[in-house]
Amino acid sequence: MPAPTERVRAAYRRITEADRPEVWIALRPEQELSAEAEALEERLASGEELPLAGTLVAVKDNIDVAGLPTTAGHPGFAYTPEVSATAVRRLTGAGALVLGKTNLDQFATGLVGTRSPYGAVRNALDPTRISGGSSSGSAVAVALGIADVALGTDTAGSGRVPAALHGLVGLKPTLGLVPNTGVVPAAEPYDCVTVFARDLAAGQRALKVMTGPDPRDPASRDWPADVRLAPRNPARTAVPDADGLAPLSDGEREAFRTAVAALTGAGVQVEEVDIAPLLEAARLLYDGALVAERYAAVGAFLAEHRDSPYTDPTVAGIILAAAELPATRLAADQHRLAGYRSLARELLDGFDGLLVPTTVGHPTLAEVAADPVGENSRLGTYTNFVNLLDLAAVAVPAGTADGHTFGVTVVAPAFEDQAALDLAGLITGGEPVQALPGTGVELAVFGAHLRGQPLNHQLTELGARFVEATATSGDYRMVALATTPPKPGLLRVNGGGSALRCEVWSISPAGLGTFLAALPAPMSLGAVTLADGRTVVGFGCEPAAAEGAEDITRHGGWPAYRESLRD
Amino acid sequence: MPAPTERVRAAYRRITEADRPEVWIALRPEQELSAEAEALEERLASGEELPLAGTLVAVKDNIDVAGLPTTAGHPGFAYTPEVSATAVRRLTGAGALVLGKTNLDQFATGLVGTRSPYGAVRNALDPTRISGGSSSGSAVAVALGIADVALGTDTAGSGRVPAALHGLVGLKPTLGLVPNTGVVPAAEPYDCVTVFARDLAAGQRALKVMTGPDPRDPASRDWPADVRLAPRNPARTAVPDADGLAPLSDGEREAFRTAVAALTGAGVQVEEVDIAPLLEAARLLYDGALVAERYAAVGAFLAEHRDSPYTDPTVAGIILAAAELPATRLAADQHRLAGYRSLARELLDGFDGLLVPTTVGHPTLAEVAADPVGENSRLGTYTNFVNLLDLAAVAVPAGTADGHTFGVTVVAPAFEDQAALDLAGLITGGEPVQALPGTGVELAVFGAHLRGQPLNHQLTELGARFVEATATSGDYRMVALATTPPKPGLLRVNGGGSALRCEVWSISPAGLGTFLAALPAPMSLGAVTLADGRTVVGFGCEPAAAEGAEDITRHGGWPAYRESLRD
Repeated sequence: MPAPTERVRAAYRRITEADRPEVWIALRPEQELSAEAEALEERLASGEELPLAGTLVAVKDNIDVAGLPTTAGHPGFAYTPEVSATAVRRLTGAGALVLGKTNLDQFATGLVGTRSPYGAVRNALDPTRISGGSSSGSAVAVALGIADVALGTDTAGSGRVPAALHGLVGLKPTLGLVPNTGVVPAAEPYDCVTVFARDLAAGQRALKVMTGPDPRDPASRDWPADVRLAPRNPARTAVPDADGLAPLSDGEREAFRTAVAALTGAGVQVEEVDIAPLLEAARLLYDGALVAERYAAVGAFLAEHRDSPYTDPTVAGIILAAAELPATRLAADQHRLAGYRSLARELLDGFDGLLVPTTVGHPTLAEVAADPVGENSRLGTYTNFVNLLDLAAVAVPAGTADGHTFGVTVVAPAFEDQAALDLAGLITGGEPVQALPGTGVELAVFGAHLRGQPLNHQLTELGARFVEATATSGDYRMVALATTPPKPGLLRVNGGGSALRCEVWSISPAGLGTFLAALPAPMSLGAVTLADGRTVVGFGCEPAAAEGAEDITRHGGWPAYRESLRD
Repeated sequence: MPAPTERVRAAYRRITEADRPEVWIALRPEQELSAEAEALEERLASGEELPLAGTLVAVKDNIDVAGLPTTAGHPGFAYTPEVSATAVRRLTGAGALVLGKTNLDQFATGLVGTRSPYGAVRNALDPTRISGGSSSGSAVAVALGIADVALGTDTAGSGRVPAALHGLVGLKPTLGLVPNTGVVPAAEPYDCVTVFARDLAAGQRALKVMTGPDPRDPASRDWPADVRLAPRNPARTAVPDADGLAPLSDGEREAFRTAVAALTGAGVQVEEVDIAPLLEAARLLYDGALVAERYAAVGAFLAEHRDSPYTDPTVAGIILAAAELPATRLAADQHRLAGYRSLARELLDGFDGLLVPTTVGHPTLAEVAADPVGENSRLGTYTNFVNLLDLAAVAVPAGTADGHTFGVTVVAPAFEDQAALDLAGLITGGEPVQALPGTGVELAVFGAHLRGQPLNHQLTELGARFVEATATSGDYRMVALATTPPKPGLLRVNGGGSALRCEVWSISPAGLGTFLAALPAPMSLGAVTLADGRTVVGFGCEPAAAEGAEDITRHGGWPAYRESLRD
C-alpha cells in the first residue's frame, strides 16, 4: 500500500485529470493534506497503530467537518462548525484524511444528484446520466478513484442508489449504530450515515471505527447483548417473488437472477417472499405525513428562502408542502409504520437477509429534468422502505443490465448488519469480510462443535462466527470421552502436555450464556491458553469422566483421532 | 386461602355492602362467576396448576373482555369484543376470574376519576374526596376489598395516582412488556396496562403472567438478553433535591422523608439529584404537540359526538384542541422528547431507581369540580414524565400525610422493573418480592461468589439475583484450591461423594456469558446436579489444580471449612 503522502499526491492528480468540479462543494488544498499525511507517516514510523492510516475520505456536505463550511447543498444555509461530526472524528482519529465536502441533493432530499445549486452531479462512468443521490458527490469521488471511501447519508436510499449507479459498495448500517451527531437532519428518525467504497472490506474497515453510541445523539444505539455475528449455516435469504420484481426491465431481472444464483451457488437457501407490505410501507415516506419530519428539519429555513435563487424548486416544493399537515395524521402514520415494522420482522423471521435490486433503471440527466419527481420515485422503489422499517442494508455491484451498472442490496433486520455483509460478500465474489460488531467473546472448541462436526449447528444457531483454526499452548492432554456424540475431553496438565488443534469462534455474551446453560455433563467451559499465549474461553471436562478414557493426545487433535479410527 | 367459590361469594357480599355503584360500568352476574369458580375448583382438584386460581380481577373499561361492552367511559363508543385483551386472556388463562368492567375518566384522559358520564368515582376511604384516575373504578374495587387485583391503564399516571390515594400498590411496567392488544388507545406510544393490588406480591403474581411479546402489538417488547434481575449491592437510589420536592406540603415532605429513611435503614445508598429535566419533559405531554396522539386515538369520535350529553366537556376540550396542531410541531416535540430520554438515562445511570412522591395532595370532589384542569395537573407532577421517558414505575403506600394516604413511587430505567419492585418492597416493609423477568439462567456457586464472600460483587454487578441456599446431590467432593482469593474446587466423583452446600443465583444469559468470559483458570462452569435432582450451571475446576489440594468434603461446604480455619 503506498505511503499516505503518495496517496494524497495521486488523489489530487486524479482530481485534475477527472475534471468533475461539481463533485466538490469544498475541496481542501493539497498542501494541507500533504502536511497531514507527513504527520501521519511520522506517527506510523514511531509505531502508532492507526487502522485507517492514510485512507482518503470525501464527506457529504451535510456532515460537519471542523473548519469547513456545512452547506447541505444551499449556500444560504452555510455555517462553519468548530467540531467535526462524530463519524468524521472517529475516522480521522483512526488515521483517515478528509479531502473535502461533496455535493448533494439539497438538504439530502432526492435520489437523483441533480437538485443542487452547485450543479447537477454527472455520473462518473457516463456523464450523460445521473450520479444518483442525494450523496452524489461522495459516490462519484470514490467511483473516480479520488477518495478511498466517502461518507453519505441515507434516509430513503441516498447511500445505496448512487452506489448501484456506479458499481460501488454502499453500506447503510442499522439506524443509530453510527451516531448522527454533527449531521444536518433530513428526516431525523430515519437518517443514517453511510459509507461508499470500491470493495466491501474497505467500506467495512471504515464503518467499524464509526459505530458505537454517542451520548450527544439520543438516537444512537449500541449492539444488543445477543447480537448475531454471522448468518445461519446454511444461510437463508428471502428474494422478492415475480410481483416484487415487476418494476425491473428484462435485463435487470436477468442480472438480479445472476446475483441470486451467486448466493445459491455458495450454498445459501433462497426462498421467494411477497414484499408488497414493504413497498406499501415505503409509500408512507412521501405520500403520508412523515414528510413533516423534513419540514421540522429545514422547513423554517426554506420558508424564509423560498425565493432564493439557490433554493431548489423541487426540494422546496416537497418540504414546504408539509407545513400544513396535521399532527394527528403524523401520529396515525407513525402507528401504521409501527405495524409495518412488525410485519417486516415477521417477513424476515428465520432469514439472514432479503436480497432486492438496489434501484430501477438509470435515467439520463435530461430524463430527470423532464420528470424530476417521477424518476426520483422510481429510483427509490427498493430503498425507501428500509430505514422506515429499521432495517440494515448492504448495496453491492452485481454486473450490468441494459448497458449500465446493476446493483443488489442485502436487507437485514436491525443489528444483523454482519449477516448482510457476509451475504453481500458472496455476491461480490466471496471476498473475506471481517466481523463488524465489537461485542463477541472468543470460544475455543475441540470436538463435536468444530466445523462439519455434529454439534457445530449449536454455535451457528446462536449467531457465532468462525474466527480461526489454531491450537492450544503445549500444556494440554486430550482423552476420548464416552459421550453421545463422541467428544474429546481437554485437560490442562502440569508437564507432559501438547499443543492440541482447536477452532476459535466469536459469540455474543448472551449466545455464550445460552450455550453454557444447555451444556450437558461432563463438559465444562473455562479459560484455555492458546499457542499464541492469549487466553480464551474453551472446553474442558469433569475429571471423573476422563478417568480411564483413552488418551488421544498423540493425534494432535480430535479430527485426526477420528480419522485414525477410520483407517 | 379460601376456595374460589367462597371468594366469589365474599366479593359479591362486599359489593352490596360497600354500595359504590359508580365503580362498575359492567358487573357480571354472581351466578356466572360462581359457575366459573366451580369449574376452576374441578380443574384444581384434578391436579392442574393455575398460578392465579380464583384471583378476582376488575378490568378498566378501556380494556377488552370478550362478551362485555368496552365503553372507554362513553356509552356512544361502546362495542362488544369477541376476544379479550391479551393481558386479560393471560390472567384468565392462569385461573383468574373477571368480575366486570370498571369506571374511568373518559378515554383515560384525566387523573381525577370524576370525568365520566357513569358518575364521579368517590374515594374508597373518604367519599368526599376523589378516587384518582383515570383508572378510578379499578383502584376503588381493590381498595374496597372486592377485587384481589385490578387492571388499569397508565399514560400520564393513571395506574399510580389512584394507588397513592388509596394506600394501594400500583405496578406500571416498562412500556410494551404487557401487550396493548385489545386496549383502547389514549396516547398510543405512551400507553401501558397496569396492576392495582393490596400488596406487592399479589400485584407481581398478576404482572408476571401478563408480560411477554404479542405479535399483534407491534410495540410489545421482550426482556433484553442482558436484563438485570436485582438491584446492585448495595442498592443505590436517587431522590429529588429540595427543589424537586417543593410541590409537597410539609406533611407530605415529612412522609416522603420517612420512606427515604426506610430505604437507608435497609442499607440502600440514597443520593439527591436534580429532577428538573424530568419535570420539564413532562410538560410536553399536554403543553406540547404530543396531545395529538390523543386526537389520533379518539378525536374523530369526539368530533362527531361533541354535543352528546355523554361527552365529558373537559376531556373533549383537551382532545379536540389537538386537531389543529401541525405535524411539524409534533415531529419537533418528539425530537425534544428523545433528548429528554437521553438526559433521563444519564440521570439514572448507576442508580437502581429514583424515589419520588407518587402524587401531590388529595383534593375533594368539590375542589376538582371547581378547577378540573389545575387539580389534575398538580396530581400528575411526579407521574407525567415516566412513560414519556420510557421508564418503569412501582407505586407503593407510604403512610399518611395531612390526614390522607401518602404514596411513593420507585422509577427505574426501562426493563429494570425488578429492581424497582425490590426497592419498593423495602419501603412496604421488606415483604418478599418474587423475580419478575423470565429469562434468568440458574448458576450454582460454592465459594468466593457466595453472599458475603469477596467475589460476590461480580454476580450482583451483572444483575444476578439470589434464589436459594441449597446443596448438591451426593456425588461431589470439594478441595481447597491455592488461588487468590482462596476458592473451593468442586469435583463430581464416581462414588464416595457428599452433598455440598451451595447458593443458586439467577442471571441473564448475557450476564452469564460475561461472567464466564472473565473467569480465570483453574475455575470452570458446567452442569451440576443439585440435591433435588435438578441440573443447573455450576462451578467446577481443572483437575490439575485439584491434584494435591486438601480435600475438604467433610466440612460440607466452603463457609464451614473457612470457619474451621479460624478455630
